[in-house]
Amino acid sequence: MGFRRLGYKIGLIRVRTVSDDELRKRVFGRMIEEFFPNVKVVSYCIEGQPEGIYDEETMRKGIPKILDAIKKLEQEVDAIIIGCCSDPGLEEGRKLVRTPLIGAGAAVAAVALQYGSRVGLLAENDLPPLVPPSIKRILGDNLIARESPRNVRDAYDLFNPKNRNEIFEAAERLKKRNVDVIALGCTGYSVLRIAPVLAERLQIPVIDPMIAAASMAVAMIYSKSIQPPNSRHE
Amino acid sequence: MGFRRLGYKIGLIRVRTVSDDELRKRVFGRMIEEFFPNVKVVSYCIEGQPEGIYDEETMRKGIPKILDAIKKLEQEVDAIIIGCCSDPGLEEGRKLVRTPLIGAGAAVAAVALQYGSRVGLLAENDLPPLVPPSIKRILGDNLIARESPRNVRDAYDLFNPKNRNEIFEAAERLKKRNVDVIALGCTGYSVLRIAPVLAERLQIPVIDPMIAAASMAVAMIYSKSIQPPNSRHE
Repeated sequence: MGFRRLGYKIGLIRVRTVSDDELRKRVFGRMIEEFFPNVKVVSYCIEGQPEGIYDEETMRKGIPKILDAIKKLEQEVDAIIIGCCSDPGLEEGRKLVRTPLIGAGAAVAAVALQYGSRVGLLAENDLPPLVPPSIKRILGDNLIARESPRNVRDAYDLFNPKNRNEIFEAAERLKKRNVDVIALGCTGYSVLRIAPVLAERLQIPVIDPMIAAASMAVAMIYSKSIQPPNSRHE
Repeated sequence: MGFRRLGYKIGLIRVRTVSDDELRKRVFGRMIEEFFPNVKVVSYCIEGQPEGIYDEETMRKGIPKILDAIKKLEQEVDAIIIGCCSDPGLEEGRKLVRTPLIGAGAAVAAVALQYGSRVGLLAENDLPPLVPPSIKRILGDNLIARESPRNVRDAYDLFNPKNRNEIFEAAERLKKRNVDVIALGCTGYSVLRIAPVLAERLQIPVIDPMIAAASMAVAMIYSKSIQPPNSRHE
């Protein structure tokens, strides 16, 4: 009866190259572990992309590195999160490993759907793909509006305090479209921990992609992690 | 920086009337609390429906009771799960309260989408609604097959050990349709803790609706539960 073990290990692939010093801060790892006390996060950071993945070209460049990381992490963890809302390598990675694989984009879309049929997407910028394919697949007609902050291209711009107001304004534009909920379409927003700030300002739910991904990971791990009691029922 | 508090309270509405003795066993509450150690579950059970909600008539009968329960639980908890995959009262309840409201059906559908675009639904029986509206909205074209165990109408039938093989056979029929994942479309399957058993037998992922709902609840609670650090970023 009950669980084989109470702790789970999630592998997290960071798609923005950070310094060793920044990596030690474990921004995402700590965020997930604080919220999911029985989860331990092992991070892996791709090389040579300090500006992150922010358009089709940087995505193409990143995918082979992400697939390598998936193969490296697979043996060690119960689930793997690709820490980017464009879900680079998600489709390809599923063919490589049986470990549950979660894209932050697919995850935030799935959580947003819990609130209703009018979902707004707050993307990082206005570069293609405007709506990542896995977000489009999951939201379908439930996606009614998309916005992004002006003056922002990549992670550096997003983190620049002078653009903070642009983020607020883009979120306000979404709210005016009468959305039920805002899905944050970039994990840079998770670094800023801006979901609760926006939710408070706008008084509508705002979903964080990294927390959404960790939640999905936990639900997916369940399928394999429990020693089921023998035909026990109520 | 960090969290205002580390524990969260989820209200769970049981749509099958159980005895006080059974209620004390806290089947769902314990299941969620074991898997989410920082969550405390407060259960509320509707009256007069010992066979649960298993068709349109029992659903109509249950909805006002569920809405009453939502109003009672609202002040006390951070999120409310409607413990039925037909999501009775979900739409109506959203208009009543601002507390995040999760339907087990919408939740299991959204988690299943993380695995790909070929989702199979294992329902409780063959009575309408064959696919609950919120599951249909979320899965859309990604739902490619639906099955249910023969000889099963309600919770009593589902829990009857003589029907266990019918459950296995229905799941096998879904697998033959070449699905990526099976979503369990009845919380009776959660009582049986059958998701990991089926996943092991069929060697494909099988999603439990109650764990899916709790995962969604946690992701939705985040939006309001964090004291954001002042403009802190990497």
